[in-house]
Amino acid sequence: MDDQDTLASLKSQVLEFREERSWKIFHTPKNLAMALAIEAGELQELFLWKEDPEILELLQNSTLAGRIQEELADILIFLLYLSEATGVDLSEAVKAKIIKNKAKYPISKSFGSNKKYTDLE
Amino acid sequence: MDDQDTLASLKSQVLEFREERSWKIFHTPKNLAMALAIEAGELQELFLWKEDPEILELLQNSTLAGRIQEELADILIFLLYLSEATGVDLSEAVKAKIIKNKAKYPISKSFGSNKKYTDLE
Amino acid sequence: MDDQDTLASLKSQVLEFREERSWKIFHTPKNLAMALAIEAGELQELFLWKEDPEILELLQNSTLAGRIQEELADILIFLLYLSEATGVDLSEAVKAKIIKNKAKYPISKSFGSNKKYTDLE
Amino acid sequence: MDDQDTLASLKSQVLEFREERSWKIFHTPKNLAMALAIEAGELQELFLWKEDPEILELLQNSTLAGRIQEELADILIFLLYLSEATGVDLSEAVKAKIIKNKAKYPISKSFGSNKKYTDLE
Repeated sequence: MDDQDTLASLKSQVLEFREERSWKIFHTPKNLAMALAIEAGELQELFLWKEDPEILELLQNSTLAGRIQEELADILIFLLYLSEATGVDLSEAVKAKIIKNKAKYPISKSFGSNKKYTDLE
Repeated sequence: MDDQDTLASLKSQVLEFREERSWKIFHTPKNLAMALAIEAGELQELFLWKEDPEILELLQNSTLAGRIQEELADILIFLLYLSEATGVDLSEAVKAKIIKNKAKYPISKSFGSNKKYTDLE
Repeated sequence: MDDQDTLASLKSQVLEFREERSWKIFHTPKNLAMALAIEAGELQELFLWKEDPEILELLQNSTLAGRIQEELADILIFLLYLSEATGVDLSEAVKAKIIKNKAKYPISKSFGSNKKYTDLE
Repeated sequence: MDDQDTLASLKSQVLEFREERSWKIFHTPKNLAMALAIEAGELQELFLWKEDPEILELLQNSTLAGRIQEELADILIFLLYLSEATGVDLSEAVKAKIIKNKAKYPISKSFGSNKKYTDLE
């Protein structure tokens, strides 16, 4: 559960899975980034050609929810491998990025706005 | 730190950031999937045209490590928003996917192999 | 102009550009596919967080049109390099795919529908 | 054949296919950009975990070539729809981009280099 598991705990589980199959040799940062991008494409495929109301309805009563869960899992799995391959602590990375984003998007200028920080006035 | 923070803790921090800016209206599952895919592309851009030995060297002594950290953070941030928007518990999703992958990739057939499960013999 | 230039003519121009810089060594099929995916992400970035009416309006009177033109050019350029690297004739590929798509999406079942062929009834 | 067909000719063929199915309503620029990115991911998937020598060998004697042809076709098809949706002439876009790239990558500085123009010295 997300309120109990740490990223380190999840990471140790995916590393064990890899170790058993001797796949580390394939997991260069470049290959892992490519793998993650492919999964991001598969996630997008679930929403293609659909409008938001249709998507929200499908989320309630269809197999879509299960497929989304699988794609989010795949993305997080490759993110954990990338964390290992590059030495990045994901939690610290997120916290540092929030601080940076607070400076890029001050509330006074970005409230309710869909503009990129380079276009804020 | 990844051995202390839970995903729920990180999620509450990114949700607070969003709440302050009233951006929830933009964060449909479809838009968030698109945002994550864009970040995956930016991550790939850091490795484009480079061979693995050059990448490993750059990881040691350059600004590349910092840029990778930022892209991994961006991807995890959108993953957390997607978790909220779709009701998926990321930790449970990863654990369920590992179980599924163990069945798709039995050690006896997949050890040391770069083949997709559909091509395993 | 699209009603005059052939793909072969455009391809010879991008190959000449590459030859002058001796970049062929970097243009493996895998690297080119990655480059194209990165450009596809940059194209998506131009539309992120925006609704269709806003996009249509921006297309009329802003710098967006110029940026779209550049991203479409980048994608076609890498497609031309991929054509060279893999020996695929793009025109024949498109015509063959249209024939295949006609079989996958018979008009009687797919008219006005946003469903994937695997979900058509 | 690429030395005969114009982009306009291919575009009229994909537009006819769409017209017969009344799909224009789904083809907003944003949706088309998403569709193209998904196809770019599928193209990458054909090369994932593989090294260049293995890819070159597979190109000679396997079903890989046919799958690559299909993915390149899908990408060009969505590029043609995007051209129509945004009013961009693809041939002119490529020629303009080559001119721009010549300025960004002068031969004297970029010959044999894999550096991005922002890193050229």
